[in-house]
Amino acid sequence: MKLHHLIETQQFDRSSLKQLFDLATSLEGKRERSLEGKILASLFYEPSTRTRFSFESAMLRLGGDVLTMESVRDSSSDKKGETLEDAIKVINHYADAIVLRHSETGSAARAAAVSKVPIINGGDGNLGQHPTQALLDLYTVQRELGRQDDIHIAFVGNLKYYRSARSLSYLLSKYKNIRITFVSVPELQMGDDVKQHLRENNVRFQETDDMQSIIRDVDVLYQTRIAKEWITTGDYESLKGRYVITRPIADSMKKGAIIIHPLPRVDEIAIEVDDSPHAVYFKQVGYGLIVRMAILKTILNGK
Amino acid sequence: MKLHHLIETQQFDRSSLKQLFDLATSLEGKRERSLEGKILASLFYEPSTRTRFSFESAMLRLGGDVLTMESVRDSSSDKKGETLEDAIKVINHYADAIVLRHSETGSAARAAAVSKVPIINGGDGNLGQHPTQALLDLYTVQRELGRQDDIHIAFVGNLKYYRSARSLSYLLSKYKNIRITFVSVPELQMGDDVKQHLRENNVRFQETDDMQSIIRDVDVLYQTRIAKEWITTGDYESLKGRYVITRPIADSMKKGAIIIHPLPRVDEIAIEVDDSPHAVYFKQVGYGLIVRMAILKTILNGK
Amino acid sequence: MKLHHLIETQQFDRSSLKQLFDLATSLEGKRERSLEGKILASLFYEPSTRTRFSFESAMLRLGGDVLTMESVRDSSSDKKGETLEDAIKVINHYADAIVLRHSETGSAARAAAVSKVPIINGGDGNLGQHPTQALLDLYTVQRELGRQDDIHIAFVGNLKYYRSARSLSYLLSKYKNIRITFVSVPELQMGDDVKQHLRENNVRFQETDDMQSIIRDVDVLYQTRIAKEWITTGDYESLKGRYVITRPIADSMKKGAIIIHPLPRVDEIAIEVDDSPHAVYFKQVGYGLIVRMAILKTILNGK
Repeated sequence: MKLHHLIETQQFDRSSLKQLFDLATSLEGKRERSLEGKILASLFYEPSTRTRFSFESAMLRLGGDVLTMESVRDSSSDKKGETLEDAIKVINHYADAIVLRHSETGSAARAAAVSKVPIINGGDGNLGQHPTQALLDLYTVQRELGRQDDIHIAFVGNLKYYRSARSLSYLLSKYKNIRITFVSVPELQMGDDVKQHLRENNVRFQETDDMQSIIRDVDVLYQTRIAKEWITTGDYESLKGRYVITRPIADSMKKGAIIIHPLPRVDEIAIEVDDSPHAVYFKQVGYGLIVRMAILKTILNGK
Repeated sequence: MKLHHLIETQQFDRSSLKQLFDLATSLEGKRERSLEGKILASLFYEPSTRTRFSFESAMLRLGGDVLTMESVRDSSSDKKGETLEDAIKVINHYADAIVLRHSETGSAARAAAVSKVPIINGGDGNLGQHPTQALLDLYTVQRELGRQDDIHIAFVGNLKYYRSARSLSYLLSKYKNIRITFVSVPELQMGDDVKQHLRENNVRFQETDDMQSIIRDVDVLYQTRIAKEWITTGDYESLKGRYVITRPIADSMKKGAIIIHPLPRVDEIAIEVDDSPHAVYFKQVGYGLIVRMAILKTILNGK
Repeated sequence: MKLHHLIETQQFDRSSLKQLFDLATSLEGKRERSLEGKILASLFYEPSTRTRFSFESAMLRLGGDVLTMESVRDSSSDKKGETLEDAIKVINHYADAIVLRHSETGSAARAAAVSKVPIINGGDGNLGQHPTQALLDLYTVQRELGRQDDIHIAFVGNLKYYRSARSLSYLLSKYKNIRITFVSVPELQMGDDVKQHLRENNVRFQETDDMQSIIRDVDVLYQTRIAKEWITTGDYESLKGRYVITRPIADSMKKGAIIIHPLPRVDEIAIEVDDSPHAVYFKQVGYGLIVRMAILKTILNGK
């Protein structure tokens, strides 16, 4: 499997996903020196401790080194007026790969267009993608359900401004007998581009604003955060209480069904759900680490 | 000696302190690979370059790796509303130990309650503890005076809001013939919880607002910073000039007596004291490094 | 060649420059373990992602480790009122060398005065120096032109507040048959201290506000950024458009002539110049990496 830039989930097919996930599974609990002498630069124009630490921990566990920026927006040449393209061309000399988090949709593709070293999209804009999150979401489904076909998944809450929900929708279209339910209020519905993609790929989906109507049927409940930083309508307070998963709701799910969440969680999942057998969102973090190890090893090693 | 979480100095007894300090002494000037493949995460919700660098340098000198956050408060999922508990559960997947600095008293214990990997309290709240600082303070006393029993120590200045002075008081109660003088204005006196602990352990202590009355008698003068960020009474300017150690004051100390200070220093110790034979506060930093190496090695190695 | 602190370019002579540059060339594309066990601390009181990453990447490529601070001003004991001297004395215990970026002219020399470990000036104040940038600028000239003597170089734009232009002027005085043209508006002219130095060393220089008059004649065009953060006159908008290098201007340069720039670039060089054969400013970044590797290896290895 050859992988250079990782910009969007459409780059993958079933075969490359299988290879990547098999590699991830083989890396569980491992510390290697396979990337010794390689340097990963974390270039975060938006802060994200979680994503940054996940990539950096993955890199260190493979024996590589890390250059890190917590928040470029506040503390860098960005402030001096430099373009993203210039920054990428410069960092090409310092690092063997760059993980980029940026607030503008399309920024990862712009970076890749001028970069000789691999660009990994760590989230680009509120209408863009977050492909590594989607890959780890899908990997979590596979590990927990033992399959990727024949799945009913409900995306709940903030579908419009949630990069990883968008990215995962693209991935799911590669599997058989997938049913998707998008649960949201009208102003936060999934974007038309994703829905169009699903139609073209004959993926069954429906939209509803009623979580209760599907909770007993789903195999995967994908909860999202109503991201305060992206909601500009002033409705944040009312929106955020709309689809809270309480313990009774979790308990009503069918046996073996799972609740996933990219985290951070605010209060859209009640704390008392955490020890439900359906709750796998913290376990998901560990899956994310090995998926990112697999991505880095594939991109930087090439073998 | 077994050590998992390090939350408060009450966890130690004379025997475990001796073991820890012997290990620290054996690590002086050393670079090892004993923690190769281990990862320490620095999770600083309050900025503290000094404490962060001390731990990270200690980790690197033992061959380990580091994930670092300069200031979580400004640049992370904390901003998105995540609880400390969730953050800790996530970082459990990325790191083998977490050093936590947080502005809330009790936060380190809260973190430990949900963490599988060791939590090291790097300072919790202005009424909490800073145990590794107290350990290095005590180690400095031992190295410089050659003993831990039979000591008259004066804590000077900001005793109410000084975590490490609190932590050290707890440690001192384990030794024999300790006399403590708390020197402060009434509004910055040592907390009742600490005084109660001393009474229960039969440690002699007195309180005064007159530093001159005891300066010739003390073996250890523990100077503190009037932390601007914690003084809300508006009296900062008058308080901070109250107990400045000048060169004449230092010169009046008895032979072999030492001045220690957790640093940073603002102007509570005059610059001209720095080359006094009593001044050991910069040397103390070096002792701190090896004490933290000993802590990390004990916690992460288990042998 | 012995090198401890690196504060200003006046420390070098032709022989030590040759040694340093030969070492840089030998390190091109290399990864070594020669600095294994050594720690470099990045102490940035002013943010500069570019300079910080360059040093840290150089250190990692030599097998060393890094302690990093993105912006001390915002997030450290600096805020608590600690002096630079105290901070340096403390970090002496944590690191084997310190690269310091600071907004006050003369700060690097102040740091060196109290530091046992080497201080590398990473830029001190708007009237100070940035010696490693000047070294890499000169190295770029040597690599691209094949010589350092017999050169006509034009410094363009912001000469008053541009540390690296100042530093390079000092270096150039060591070579034969150098001609310098300072191109700027009156309020941004090169400082008298530099001009006095050139006179004393018999370096021919002229000042003009007309870039066109010399563009066909120069071997090296050194473009600068009108640093918004240092222009307090309110004329930023008019100043910044004054000396933009467009593609026609670049095309009018003589064969083999080069355009260099310390970056970041805002719009003082048009994007369409980037693929001109004269444009070497991105290549310059790569030269900078190996020059900094050579500096670190010289300072920390001593052999």
